[in-house]
Amino acid sequence: MTHEARYRVHYEDTDMAGVVYYANYLKFIERGRSEALREAGVDQRAMRDEGIVFVVKSLKADYLAPGRYDDILSVRTDLIEMKGASATLAQSVNCDDVKLFEAEVRIACMSTAGKPMRLPKIAAKALTSL
Amino acid sequence: MTHEARYRVHYEDTDMAGVVYYANYLKFIERGRSEALREAGVDQRAMRDEGIVFVVKSLKADYLAPGRYDDILSVRTDLIEMKGASATLAQSVNCDDVKLFEAEVRIACMSTAGKPMRLPKIAAKALTSL
Amino acid sequence: MTHEARYRVHYEDTDMAGVVYYANYLKFIERGRSEALREAGVDQRAMRDEGIVFVVKSLKADYLAPGRYDDILSVRTDLIEMKGASATLAQSVNCDDVKLFEAEVRIACMSTAGKPMRLPKIAAKALTSL
Amino acid sequence: MTHEARYRVHYEDTDMAGVVYYANYLKFIERGRSEALREAGVDQRAMRDEGIVFVVKSLKADYLAPGRYDDILSVRTDLIEMKGASATLAQSVNCDDVKLFEAEVRIACMSTAGKPMRLPKIAAKALTSL
Repeated sequence: MTHEARYRVHYEDTDMAGVVYYANYLKFIERGRSEALREAGVDQRAMRDEGIVFVVKSLKADYLAPGRYDDILSVRTDLIEMKGASATLAQSVNCDDVKLFEAEVRIACMSTAGKPMRLPKIAAKALTSL
Repeated sequence: MTHEARYRVHYEDTDMAGVVYYANYLKFIERGRSEALREAGVDQRAMRDEGIVFVVKSLKADYLAPGRYDDILSVRTDLIEMKGASATLAQSVNCDDVKLFEAEVRIACMSTAGKPMRLPKIAAKALTSL
Repeated sequence: MTHEARYRVHYEDTDMAGVVYYANYLKFIERGRSEALREAGVDQRAMRDEGIVFVVKSLKADYLAPGRYDDILSVRTDLIEMKGASATLAQSVNCDDVKLFEAEVRIACMSTAGKPMRLPKIAAKALTSL
Repeated sequence: MTHEARYRVHYEDTDMAGVVYYANYLKFIERGRSEALREAGVDQRAMRDEGIVFVVKSLKADYLAPGRYDDILSVRTDLIEMKGASATLAQSVNCDDVKLFEAEVRIACMSTAGKPMRLPKIAAKALTSL
């Protein structure tokens, strides 16, 4: 079930080319992932206080059209595949009917000391609900 | 010929997981690309004043190990393939002998009005020198 | 009339101290200012396309308590003083009933070539409505 | 004794006005402060692992001229005043002979749990050496 979240493009997101700076799309999709997890009951602040954090292991991204100041971006998040220790998500950023950006993102869990961890049950359940 | 540039990890680069925030690796490799182009004679500020900017069209990235505050990151940039209107680069981020991040990045040129452009001759030449 | 806007703290806003990175409060209050101006009819993208941008001339800020991941921040914006070429705003960032940050910000207009400009009428009117 | 550090303006630092985004000067001066402390023997990563971090308590800043892409910024840091639990620094950002930005910044120490702390001896000594 696709999760959708909407974010305004602010001055801070743009660069001197007059468009959204390319690294900032990763911020927008991270907000979307976190929002999806939050709505499914995952509390990343509590997780981190217990020493577990999500990490991105890999991603593939296509930049299709530039986002601009004042645009309202719609971030969509879907689960592609779930494994014991990682999950792969499809994410996209649209402005109205134009797709600006799409990405496939593999995430996993890590202890704050840097050790790979299995996904906590609640996180796995939340991801499966996407 | 591999281009190498070095950058310190600052507070601004970290997040509450205690490591470099995942989107910020795209900043580090962009610095490296721009530095490589600058050293090969490309003036991106003049290009932009003439209405031409580089854009990233796609990327694939693997996050191999976390970078931390105070680390000195070494960004390496190599040319993989050159076409008339785009170039594909291999980029990596190391801390000492540990590879933290590697990416394949396809870049192209665009007018500031959003129209695809051929790579300017000096940019093509600079990229070929990598 | 106080303008209020609300923003979630995301991973990108935090640093390895586990709190909102100090520079990022300036992003939150800029979003609030821009939102206030937008609602009062100012189109900063059109302004910029005509070669006029807002700039911050000076600010005083107090950091009162740390913001944390997942917090909903409330940004308030009020006009303190209006002159022909600049305006001074009072801005604050609250989380629930706790004030985290407050600032006094003087803004002015500049041409994109760097020349000081009078505030456009619509901008002056919008600021006066705050 | 004035500490000086130099940083290039990258694409990530600019916004659609074609200049350095106003919040990013706080990043540049934070790099300068941290570099000054590092050279005087303060290890902020070790401090944070022991649960102590620097925080900014207040600042006053003037934006005098815009920084632009490719500029080399020189960040200067001086001690103005030292107290038991806080220190006030004068910081400026120059590009060649033009002063772009100057600020007075009061910093203190906090436990990662949010409790005010005295400055560790080595930090106090490092600050006094500025």
